[in-house]
Amino acid sequence: MSSGASGLTGAEARALIRNGRWRGPTAGLAPGYVQANLVIMPREHAFHFLAWCSRNSRPCPVLDVLEPGIAEPSIAPGADLRTDLPRYRVYRGADAAAEEVEDIRAVWREDLTSFLLGCSYTFEAALVRAGVPVRHWEAGSNVPMYITNIATARAGPFAGPTVLSMRPVPGRLVARAVQVTSRFPGAHGAPLHVGGPADIGVRDLARPDFGDPPKMQTGDVPVFWACGVTSQVALAQSGLRFFIAHSPGHMFVSDIRDEDLAVL
Amino acid sequence: MSSGASGLTGAEARALIRNGRWRGPTAGLAPGYVQANLVIMPREHAFHFLAWCSRNSRPCPVLDVLEPGIAEPSIAPGADLRTDLPRYRVYRGADAAAEEVEDIRAVWREDLTSFLLGCSYTFEAALVRAGVPVRHWEAGSNVPMYITNIATARAGPFAGPTVLSMRPVPGRLVARAVQVTSRFPGAHGAPLHVGGPADIGVRDLARPDFGDPPKMQTGDVPVFWACGVTSQVALAQSGLRFFIAHSPGHMFVSDIRDEDLAVL
Repeated sequence: MSSGASGLTGAEARALIRNGRWRGPTAGLAPGYVQANLVIMPREHAFHFLAWCSRNSRPCPVLDVLEPGIAEPSIAPGADLRTDLPRYRVYRGADAAAEEVEDIRAVWREDLTSFLLGCSYTFEAALVRAGVPVRHWEAGSNVPMYITNIATARAGPFAGPTVLSMRPVPGRLVARAVQVTSRFPGAHGAPLHVGGPADIGVRDLARPDFGDPPKMQTGDVPVFWACGVTSQVALAQSGLRFFIAHSPGHMFVSDIRDEDLAVL
Repeated sequence: MSSGASGLTGAEARALIRNGRWRGPTAGLAPGYVQANLVIMPREHAFHFLAWCSRNSRPCPVLDVLEPGIAEPSIAPGADLRTDLPRYRVYRGADAAAEEVEDIRAVWREDLTSFLLGCSYTFEAALVRAGVPVRHWEAGSNVPMYITNIATARAGPFAGPTVLSMRPVPGRLVARAVQVTSRFPGAHGAPLHVGGPADIGVRDLARPDFGDPPKMQTGDVPVFWACGVTSQVALAQSGLRFFIAHSPGHMFVSDIRDEDLAVL
């Protein structure tokens, strides 16, 4: 299990993490198992955040929502959200300064309410299975992400722009990429935009707001999907003085399978 | 506009209702426009209800959630949920006794929080377009609905069985019915069960818990979809002492189109 964690189940991956034997990114850790973005906040903001996710389900598809004080998700019985992710970020104060930690038991409170939101790993695996190249996998880099001019629908203190991730797709495979990802509305679903980025307020593809610059190949078309980072932008500008999230790339690995999210 | 309301837009249908010129069921009132179940409750229960919907999105797909005191949905700008449905039911007291009214302005409060949930009209219209007969339309009756042994995932006071609606489908068209409805996860999506009802705890198809008995034809197979009445059963057993819903069949007509809900 030490070299190459490939082939683990979701539960095995979580056990490895809980025992302190895995602190790295979770991409590829338990192939076929759904991974999720984690957001935790005090109960008083939970309704507005869930309403905001419901109104903006393309960037923020809700896979699970836990009651205040509960750390065991329904999509992974036996798991503990306080110990089963490799790294967390704890945000505090008016400037939402982040502290990176490996465990959140010390900051846990009975009013904390947890959300698990769908993530792009599910549809990227499906793209690869369908023969659509995922360029940033090939390059060993992070997917480029862009703050767009597409506003999210506000709920309470939560608002802000939609962040889109971009994957270059060969023109002859764009339709296939749309078909494949449409099957997974629980993991951002179909692209929100295909082609030139000017319409969505993105000036320069070579300068993403998050992640690494894309490696376009001849004949590639830019294809943009809604991105979970949208929730982090909304949280950062919400004025909340205490919230917790996973550290980027260090996701929660669930017990449900990618195919469990497929609608067709 | 007086005889045969067919061909109205969503906004035209709502204007007719708001002006007191339509108090009947809304099926077929504005073809192609998404109709929705309405649930309204005090703010204190709203997080748990939304969490319960999120956890049980097949019977209760959230199309819109409004902030406390707000009656104008984002899926129908200019609409007013207090006046734009033909009939409402106001539930009060320990036994949730229902009063039927045509307007809820008199009982409106600033802490009331409204939810719009997807409804089967969207996928029934898609079935008909795809050549799949909808037997209860042909018979002019209500769809039969059954309380099953499939439990919903609890959130706070909200729990209870999943209610499924059943439509008899000719065996050669069952696959098509699955394909067509899979496109609309915002309107209950694909069937949850096909075939004999014993597995889901239904004893006698001829005796539905709600609606009218089905008219099966030779070669028809029972096909079961998640049903929005699930939320009414959960509300009735929740112990809430005040909530409001649409009167059955008297839905909210939105401005979004059926095809806006399609994922593929």
